[in-house]
Amino acid sequence: MDMSTRRYAFSQRAENLTSSAIREILKITERPEVISFAGGLPSPKGFPVAELKAAFDRVLQDQGTVALQYGPTEGYAPLREWVAEDLRRTGADVSADEVLIVSGSQQALDMLGKLYIDAGSPVLVEAPSYLGALQSFSLFEPRFVSTPTDDRGLIPEALTDERTAGARFIYVLPNFQNPTGLTLDLARRKALVERCAQLDLPIIEDDPYGELRYSGEPLPGLLGLGRAAGATVIRLGTFSKVLAPGLRLGYVVAPREIISKLVQIKQATDLHTASLTQMAVYEAVSTGFLDTHLPKVRELYKQQCAYMLDALAQHFPKSVQWTRPEGGMFIWVTMPDHINSQELLRAAIDEYVAFVPGAPFFAGVEPQHNTMRLSFVTVPEDRIRAGVATLGRLIGQRER
Amino acid sequence: MDMSTRRYAFSQRAENLTSSAIREILKITERPEVISFAGGLPSPKGFPVAELKAAFDRVLQDQGTVALQYGPTEGYAPLREWVAEDLRRTGADVSADEVLIVSGSQQALDMLGKLYIDAGSPVLVEAPSYLGALQSFSLFEPRFVSTPTDDRGLIPEALTDERTAGARFIYVLPNFQNPTGLTLDLARRKALVERCAQLDLPIIEDDPYGELRYSGEPLPGLLGLGRAAGATVIRLGTFSKVLAPGLRLGYVVAPREIISKLVQIKQATDLHTASLTQMAVYEAVSTGFLDTHLPKVRELYKQQCAYMLDALAQHFPKSVQWTRPEGGMFIWVTMPDHINSQELLRAAIDEYVAFVPGAPFFAGVEPQHNTMRLSFVTVPEDRIRAGVATLGRLIGQRER
Repeated sequence: MDMSTRRYAFSQRAENLTSSAIREILKITERPEVISFAGGLPSPKGFPVAELKAAFDRVLQDQGTVALQYGPTEGYAPLREWVAEDLRRTGADVSADEVLIVSGSQQALDMLGKLYIDAGSPVLVEAPSYLGALQSFSLFEPRFVSTPTDDRGLIPEALTDERTAGARFIYVLPNFQNPTGLTLDLARRKALVERCAQLDLPIIEDDPYGELRYSGEPLPGLLGLGRAAGATVIRLGTFSKVLAPGLRLGYVVAPREIISKLVQIKQATDLHTASLTQMAVYEAVSTGFLDTHLPKVRELYKQQCAYMLDALAQHFPKSVQWTRPEGGMFIWVTMPDHINSQELLRAAIDEYVAFVPGAPFFAGVEPQHNTMRLSFVTVPEDRIRAGVATLGRLIGQRER
Repeated sequence: MDMSTRRYAFSQRAENLTSSAIREILKITERPEVISFAGGLPSPKGFPVAELKAAFDRVLQDQGTVALQYGPTEGYAPLREWVAEDLRRTGADVSADEVLIVSGSQQALDMLGKLYIDAGSPVLVEAPSYLGALQSFSLFEPRFVSTPTDDRGLIPEALTDERTAGARFIYVLPNFQNPTGLTLDLARRKALVERCAQLDLPIIEDDPYGELRYSGEPLPGLLGLGRAAGATVIRLGTFSKVLAPGLRLGYVVAPREIISKLVQIKQATDLHTASLTQMAVYEAVSTGFLDTHLPKVRELYKQQCAYMLDALAQHFPKSVQWTRPEGGMFIWVTMPDHINSQELLRAAIDEYVAFVPGAPFFAGVEPQHNTMRLSFVTVPEDRIRAGVATLGRLIGQRER
C-alpha cells in the first residue's frame, strides 16, 4: 500500500502514532551478543512452570467446558474474591465486586483512558513515568501535566490548584517505580491521598512491583490510605511479576460506580479475559503457593540488583548518580547535564551494550536527556559487570 | 460512591454509556429453568477439551519459560504463518507479516475503532449488524450510517456517493451474519469490493462463522476478492467458534501499512496476546486437527438448526417470516409490523422463554421493533420445540 495514494482517512490519534526511533534501535538488542539492560522482562528463573502446568491440567481435566466457554466480563468470581482477600490482608477493605479482572494491567490503562480522557483533558503523571502508560493514555489525546518528583517520589506540595485544574486523574507508581526504581515514602503517601481527597482527584495507583520488595519495610498502599482519607483510588495489580507475564492477567480495584463503567468498557473492548487463564491462576494461587514462591523471586531480584549496584560503584564516574531501589527491576541513572543518553546509546550499541534512554519517560515537561534506565533482572552477573564497565568508560570519555 | 456528589469528570464517551435494559432482562435467562434462545454461546459439545489439554501440556513441558514470558506484539510467529497459510488455501494471497494476533476478534473491533474513528466520523454498518461491534465502535463516538440489506445480504447499489461521503470504513459480516444468519451472495460480494475499490473505502470483513457452513457451497471471502479488485480489506477471524471462545484468540489480516499501525495500537492496548494460549493453539491446529474436528462441529450445528427450523414451521403463525441459514448460529425472525419484540420478550420470560429483541442491532436508522434473534446451538431438541411453541402461541395472541 502506497501511502501517497491513500485517499481514505485514519483517525487523528492514529495519524499521530509514530514508530519509535528508540524501539528501532533496541530491536538490535535482541541479538544474543548484546548485553541488554534495556529490557523490562521479569526473570524466567522466577516462573513457576511446573505449578502452572499442574494448574492448567487440573482445570482442563475437571472443568474443561467451563474454562473454554465465554465467561463473565467482570472475571472469574473465585479469583475476584481471592484478589479482594489478598488486599484485605494488607489493610484495604475491599470486596470482590470492587474487583475487575483484566488482560494484564496494560489493558487497565487503556480502559481508564477510555473512562476518563476526552481529547485535551489534563491528566497528571509523574516526571518521569511508565512509558507504556504514556503511550496508552496518548491514544485518547490528553494534555499531559507533569508532576515533579525527587528521591522520595512524587512531591504532593506540587499539586497546586493551578497544576491540577480540570485534571481527570493522577497516575502514580508508588513502589519501585518504572523507570526510577524509587518508592514514595509514607509521609508523602499520606499527604498525596489527603490532597487528592480535598481536590476530588482520582488516583490511579499502578503497583506491578509491590510484591517484589527485597529490602526495607513494606509501606501501606494508596488504596487503603486513600479510602481512609476519602479519596477515590483505582488500584492496578498484575500477576505478571509474581507468576508470569505471558499469561496476561491483571486486575483493577475501584469503587463500584467505576467498576460498573469499566465492565461496560471491558465488554466493548474484548468481552472478557480468558476463562482458562483465570481459572488456572486461581488454582495456582489459592493453595497459598505464592507464600513460598515469592521469597525465592525476591531473593533472586535482590541478588541481581546487588550485582549491578556493586558494578556501578566500581565503574561509573563520580559525576554520575543512580537510585538504590528497595525492590522491583530498575535503576535510574543521572549523568552530568551535557551527556545525552541517546547519543550514548548509539556508542554503547557499537560495543554491544544497551539500555533505555530516559527522555521518552517524560511527558508534559522538558525531558532530562542525561538520564537512562537500567534493568538488572535477566542479565548474568559477569555480563552485568562487563556491560556496566563499558558504560562507565563511555561516560568517562564524555566527562568535561 | 454517590454520583450526585461526584465532582470529578468521566470522559464524554463514558458518560454516554448506559446499562442496557435488555442485558438486565437477559440476566434472568441464565436461570436453568429458562429456555434461552438469547445466548450467542457456541456449543461446549464442540470444544476439543482433550486436544487442548494435551496442547497446553506439551507447550508448558517443552517451552515453558518462553510461553510464560512477554512475547512480540504481532503475535507468535508460527501461528501467524499458520493463519496466512490457512487463508492461502482459500485463494487469498496472504503473508505472515500481514497477520496480527489479537485477544479475540472483539479486540480487533476496538483497535479498528482506535485506528479509524474520530468523534463524528461516519462509519457504514449493515442494518442490522453485530451488536458487539456497534458497542465497540460507539466508544469512539462515530456517526453510524446504516446500509440496507435484504435476504441476499447487504445491497451494494445502496453505497451511493451521498451515503458513503467521508465514511472511514464499511463493516460487513458476509457469512451467516449475526444477527440475521444471512449470507452475502457472490454477485453482491463482487459488486461490493468493486464499489469499495472505486470509493477507496476500507472494508472490515468480520467472519467468525465462515468455517461453520453446514449447507450450500462456500463462497470466496471479501479478502481475496477485494485484493483482486484493488480494494482495502481488513479481515477478522477467530478461534472462538472453531476451537473455543474462552481462549480469547483471534486475528486481523490487513495490508502492512495498516498492520503496522495496529501493532502500535495493540501495544498500547494490552502489549500482546497471551503467549501460552497462542503456542497451545498453534500446537493444536498445526497437526491438521481441525480437518477432522470441524466436520463434527458443523454436523452438530446443522442438526440444531434443523430442529429449530422444523419447530418454527410447526408452531409459528403464517404471518411470521424467518431466515434459513446455511451456517452459523442464528435465525432472524420478522413478525407483523405491529408486534413489538421487546414487549413480547417480557411476556415470554413470564413463561420461561428468552430471545434477543432485534432493535439494538440497528444503528443509524429506525430499528425494526418487530424482529428478534434466535440462537439454536446450545438448547436440547425438546426444549427448542417447547420454547418455539410458546413463542408461536404468544405471537399468535398478538396477531390482528
